[in-house]
Amino acid sequence: MSAVKLEECRERIRAELDNVVDFWLKYSHDTVHGGFFTCIGKDGKVYDELKYVWLQGRQVWMYCRLYRSMDRFHKPEILEAAKAGGAFLRKFARVSGSSGQWKCAFCLTRDGKAVKIQRTIFSECFYIMAMDELSRVTGDKDMQLEAEQMMEQLIFWVQKDSSGLGRPQLPGDVPTNGMAVPMMLLCLVQQLTEGRGQEVVQKYRELGSWCVQQILQHIQRDGTAILENVSLEGAELPGCQGRLQNPGHALEAGWFLLQFSAERGDEELQRTAIDKFVELPYQYGWDKEHGGLFYFLDVDGHCPTQLEWSMKLWWPHCEALIAFLMAYSQTKRPELLERFSQVYEYIFSHFSDAENGEWFGYLTQEGKVALDFKGGPFKGFFHVPRCLYMCERILDDLLENKD
Amino acid sequence: MSAVKLEECRERIRAELDNVVDFWLKYSHDTVHGGFFTCIGKDGKVYDELKYVWLQGRQVWMYCRLYRSMDRFHKPEILEAAKAGGAFLRKFARVSGSSGQWKCAFCLTRDGKAVKIQRTIFSECFYIMAMDELSRVTGDKDMQLEAEQMMEQLIFWVQKDSSGLGRPQLPGDVPTNGMAVPMMLLCLVQQLTEGRGQEVVQKYRELGSWCVQQILQHIQRDGTAILENVSLEGAELPGCQGRLQNPGHALEAGWFLLQFSAERGDEELQRTAIDKFVELPYQYGWDKEHGGLFYFLDVDGHCPTQLEWSMKLWWPHCEALIAFLMAYSQTKRPELLERFSQVYEYIFSHFSDAENGEWFGYLTQEGKVALDFKGGPFKGFFHVPRCLYMCERILDDLLENKD
Repeated sequence: MSAVKLEECRERIRAELDNVVDFWLKYSHDTVHGGFFTCIGKDGKVYDELKYVWLQGRQVWMYCRLYRSMDRFHKPEILEAAKAGGAFLRKFARVSGSSGQWKCAFCLTRDGKAVKIQRTIFSECFYIMAMDELSRVTGDKDMQLEAEQMMEQLIFWVQKDSSGLGRPQLPGDVPTNGMAVPMMLLCLVQQLTEGRGQEVVQKYRELGSWCVQQILQHIQRDGTAILENVSLEGAELPGCQGRLQNPGHALEAGWFLLQFSAERGDEELQRTAIDKFVELPYQYGWDKEHGGLFYFLDVDGHCPTQLEWSMKLWWPHCEALIAFLMAYSQTKRPELLERFSQVYEYIFSHFSDAENGEWFGYLTQEGKVALDFKGGPFKGFFHVPRCLYMCERILDDLLENKD
Repeated sequence: MSAVKLEECRERIRAELDNVVDFWLKYSHDTVHGGFFTCIGKDGKVYDELKYVWLQGRQVWMYCRLYRSMDRFHKPEILEAAKAGGAFLRKFARVSGSSGQWKCAFCLTRDGKAVKIQRTIFSECFYIMAMDELSRVTGDKDMQLEAEQMMEQLIFWVQKDSSGLGRPQLPGDVPTNGMAVPMMLLCLVQQLTEGRGQEVVQKYRELGSWCVQQILQHIQRDGTAILENVSLEGAELPGCQGRLQNPGHALEAGWFLLQFSAERGDEELQRTAIDKFVELPYQYGWDKEHGGLFYFLDVDGHCPTQLEWSMKLWWPHCEALIAFLMAYSQTKRPELLERFSQVYEYIFSHFSDAENGEWFGYLTQEGKVALDFKGGPFKGFFHVPRCLYMCERILDDLLENKD
């Protein structure tokens, strides 16, 4: 791929990011109750008013990140939207109750009443991302403290005692190491420490290494597979749960590891990240017949039990685009740029909606749009803009230093 | 459709039922720990050993029902399998804990350790069906009592206080009337009262009428739609939840109502059942382009948020086949037999696997097999054999009285 081609990519990605930001600025703000609508139809119309806390937190984070790191988004309109979202979150996301005062709801009514609580840590993860990033643009120390206190709670749940999450302890429910948990915690370590003083960096240093070790436990079968769930000791688990593969998650972990290895100058980790978490998931996850990444697979070739296993979802493709471009930017190996190009082509010919803006999120195996909304309970202002933002920045660096 | 054609149908259905029973007798029995494997691949191989309580209960029920009502299944092999499954259930399904001693687990390990508990009533429903039906073939009064006591617990959860199910009370989580609950309770009333003395019949008489009223609340929009979730007062709910349609559930409710109306000689209810719960769901639920019933729809034509909304699942087609044939047998209206024939053709050309037996459960919208296993976490020995059993019996009656 030539520099001219890369320049074309950057222009398209830049224009797409502008378009996507505009879409959410235009359609998602609830000016009556605060917070964001996330169930948004193909043409921008709100089709459900529930407010999903994952997506509220992610949108606050994304607005702040764009505001503070890209000049063209350093606009009052974006800052105000982020602050309004943050205020809604602080006011309504945390629920009191038997499971501890630091638990967040999963879903709220339009006016902030809790509808559902998940017995996992993810609402809290995105709450932390929102609070920390918001504290960076507002300078609000109290908000940073809120993020760090919630992080302490998370660490306690993950490393010490998960009973506060509300899941009954059952004799057959063996604790496992699911990929999502160390991945999210690593992401949070990177979030909380970026550019902070040595005290904060030191505080989370050991946790970062622990997360990496937990992620590396998912390399299984003599290095030929990434499995989504392993035992706490890093052994393969029996049955469907143990054989499950989620190529998008592996690729996302891949670029988290690449960032981490670059920060620490760890070349061995960089190699492992590229071999096992970028190239390998592509090899088994890419659909050779119809293109695109499968959502789930079974390492032994059984049919997964998830009804959507063969569908092509937007977010694994976002993660793949970042992972290949970052891997290329760190190594300049041309085959990584080829993969980037392949994912890029698939994305722009399948997910991106030239007519009404933003991306479709859910395609059939054959690549037909299966669900035509732009936002839903799990698709908000996050994976698409984060991908475009990351890729634009990496391309800026690559093109600046091209010769 | 001529009597000759009906006779052909009956022969095929009868042969298919034999084939399906053989499949599960051959592949699903766990002779080491008791109970049934339900995760069974396309060729009969067990791909996961977890035991889902819904499916354990359903398989016990189905074996007993076949044993006691069809001569060719009145075999020791089937009785012994049912008893072994029932023993496994009684030993392991009920969990003790804060949520009350009558709660059942959703999922068990192969050797009976609880893995997961759902905060709903459905594991308990299928436990009751199993215990009651088993008590009928064994004459075990204690088992009948077990079923009735669990039923008391269910009624308490549904009509008095659901807090024992373990769901936190949240201000935004408004109680709703979801179709599944009154449908299942009506099914249980029919199960517990069939052929029992007047005391039992009287005990559940009012509950039966209450279930029917709750089901009829789902007729919405001036009688033009069946909605899956309504308020406790029978009003439409806002958002996706309120607009959701599940044609398979409506059709299943349809034949439950038809049975009930026949028992009570209620002709008005019969008309409502056929118009609103049999013909109407077919009208909006049948895919005019590719054939088959959609899994979920949105009454206003928005895209449902369920990823699998456009897939064709085996069980709605099972329910449709029963519903149309029962409606025809009660009314002799030829258009109902035409619909039966259409569903029948779709089933035998798409779901039934001539090569390895049993049915595929999950097709794409276009009718391609999307998940190729014969049993999974939600597909066991139940919908297919119940449908074939019901249809064979109805066809027997029709052909006996044909003149």
